[in-house]
Amino acid sequence: MSDLIQPVILCGGAGTRLWPASRGMRAKQFLPLTGAQSLFSQTLTRVAGAGYAEPLIICGPGHVDVAREQAGDQTMRLVVEPEPRNTAAAIALAVAACAPEQLLLVMPSDHIIADTAAFHRAIEQGSSLARGGWLVTFGVAPDRPDTGFGYIANGAALGDDGYAVARFVEKPPLAQAEAMLAAGGFSWNAGIFLFRADAMYAAMARHCRAILAAAEQAMANATTDGEAQFVHAPSFKTAPSVSIDCAVMEKHDRVAVVPISVGWSDLGSWHAVHAASNRDEAGNSASGNSFLHDSRGCLVRGGDQRVSLIGMQDVAVIVDGDDILVMPLARSQDARVAARAHE
Amino acid sequence: MSDLIQPVILCGGAGTRLWPASRGMRAKQFLPLTGAQSLFSQTLTRVAGAGYAEPLIICGPGHVDVAREQAGDQTMRLVVEPEPRNTAAAIALAVAACAPEQLLLVMPSDHIIADTAAFHRAIEQGSSLARGGWLVTFGVAPDRPDTGFGYIANGAALGDDGYAVARFVEKPPLAQAEAMLAAGGFSWNAGIFLFRADAMYAAMARHCRAILAAAEQAMANATTDGEAQFVHAPSFKTAPSVSIDCAVMEKHDRVAVVPISVGWSDLGSWHAVHAASNRDEAGNSASGNSFLHDSRGCLVRGGDQRVSLIGMQDVAVIVDGDDILVMPLARSQDARVAARAHE
Repeated sequence: MSDLIQPVILCGGAGTRLWPASRGMRAKQFLPLTGAQSLFSQTLTRVAGAGYAEPLIICGPGHVDVAREQAGDQTMRLVVEPEPRNTAAAIALAVAACAPEQLLLVMPSDHIIADTAAFHRAIEQGSSLARGGWLVTFGVAPDRPDTGFGYIANGAALGDDGYAVARFVEKPPLAQAEAMLAAGGFSWNAGIFLFRADAMYAAMARHCRAILAAAEQAMANATTDGEAQFVHAPSFKTAPSVSIDCAVMEKHDRVAVVPISVGWSDLGSWHAVHAASNRDEAGNSASGNSFLHDSRGCLVRGGDQRVSLIGMQDVAVIVDGDDILVMPLARSQDARVAARAHE
Repeated sequence: MSDLIQPVILCGGAGTRLWPASRGMRAKQFLPLTGAQSLFSQTLTRVAGAGYAEPLIICGPGHVDVAREQAGDQTMRLVVEPEPRNTAAAIALAVAACAPEQLLLVMPSDHIIADTAAFHRAIEQGSSLARGGWLVTFGVAPDRPDTGFGYIANGAALGDDGYAVARFVEKPPLAQAEAMLAAGGFSWNAGIFLFRADAMYAAMARHCRAILAAAEQAMANATTDGEAQFVHAPSFKTAPSVSIDCAVMEKHDRVAVVPISVGWSDLGSWHAVHAASNRDEAGNSASGNSFLHDSRGCLVRGGDQRVSLIGMQDVAVIVDGDDILVMPLARSQDARVAARAHE
């Protein structure tokens, strides 16, 4: 049995809220949104140290090449889904691909974590709970009543390591988000999980047997190409498309939450990208070739073009190829409107 | 003696307030800012009818080709300045190039006039004053306290045709502009003039002899290339660079103003372009490939690119080549700031 933690990196998302930069073959996770490295590369680097096994990447067929390219010298194992079937099916593939006693650390590929050392300490903290059979999720302390996240309510303390989860709260209306922020004892569901493969296997067998069966069948009949396994499409496509939260976490009785304070952002919108980016004294984050005059709180991603802003406040100007998106950062959730109209 | 009116079209401007569309070799007057035709072409068309002689175009050497191209089949005479020396010197060239008794109609090349028939009636109205030796300017009734124009104060009525000019007012501060708007009897100086060549000659001989002498010398020693005369550079460069308003109109005693209501705009800013453009119900004027969602009062000129606006109000988004300008329309005067920074 290996004591190494097995990173599982989920690469299935499309990220239309970051249109036009994120679309089609160039999903959000493969873009250098906040610095020189893509979010995927940052995620790989985050688990490249001692204590971690070679990462297992779950991605679509269209992303195999870019994943290999961005991994560079770092070795990895690829499990290729024929189509995205949500996180429960993806995690079931990982469970089927790993030894029962292994600790799996499941992470989205398109988040940022500014403080890697704190992240590693949180993983270590969660490990003892996970080794004890708990399905561990990590909770981010809210600093605003965000309605874009699911929330986790703390239950009983589990020593110093975390809390049993009292319940999961779906993305709330603003009033409820404000109440939870005021009450305390709630955290954002960051979509990062740590568990023994056999513990998740048992939970899935109980709560979402069809998904598990489809994933096992799909892995058993996978075809191999180098380090990549292409799962058996007809089997996998029978898996119901459900999130791991709905399929397992909200139903299971031994789910724990470990609070983290690691500079996390899901970069789920241009607003979040702005918040996570380095900004100048006027609160602007602008790509190299931009010219900002009398402008504050703006996000400019100009691509190869020169963007000049005069007298603008709190807007995003995103250029990608022939597309230019201009909107107030507060309207960032609506980037999807343009994505839907154009793609 | 010809009874035809001699149009003189001044093409010397650069138009940096309409940066990035207007710059360098592509000056504002050669751009199709409000429709399919460029402002220069519209100006030519405006004086192509009966009663007008072949127009005389005063432009720089960099604009000869584009002027010829945009004139198409319309014949014209080109007088080419080696460098711009302001409107007094340009008009002095026209005076030197024309017969003394001719009526000269001097017009900028980069304004729009929506109602051509009303314009022709105004010219006819001014002609009797001009034939009587008055230097005629045309005044636009102000509909707002604009601080971007010079104003003309009406003096004594000259029959039904117009007024003697009491005085010219430089671009005023806002309080003064508001006071003039409230008082009435003031109009905007549109930079359109009508006069007998000999009347202007006499006025220049009295008020700005050095400019007139330089222009006469420059025309006398011009070199000819087809329909174009390239004026003698060493002579012309000795002309002081002064506007016709300062050099002559403000000093002369027989200056008249004819009020016009012709749908005039100098398109002096993107704000003015927006005001003069066709707009949809939401007040947006957007080029063909734009996508506007929940946006009002915006001007979008996307060039070859697709501009998507979400939740924006009263902004301009102007794309030209590699340059993208975003600003509130109310800040349009500051487009020059970006032009200066980049050009």
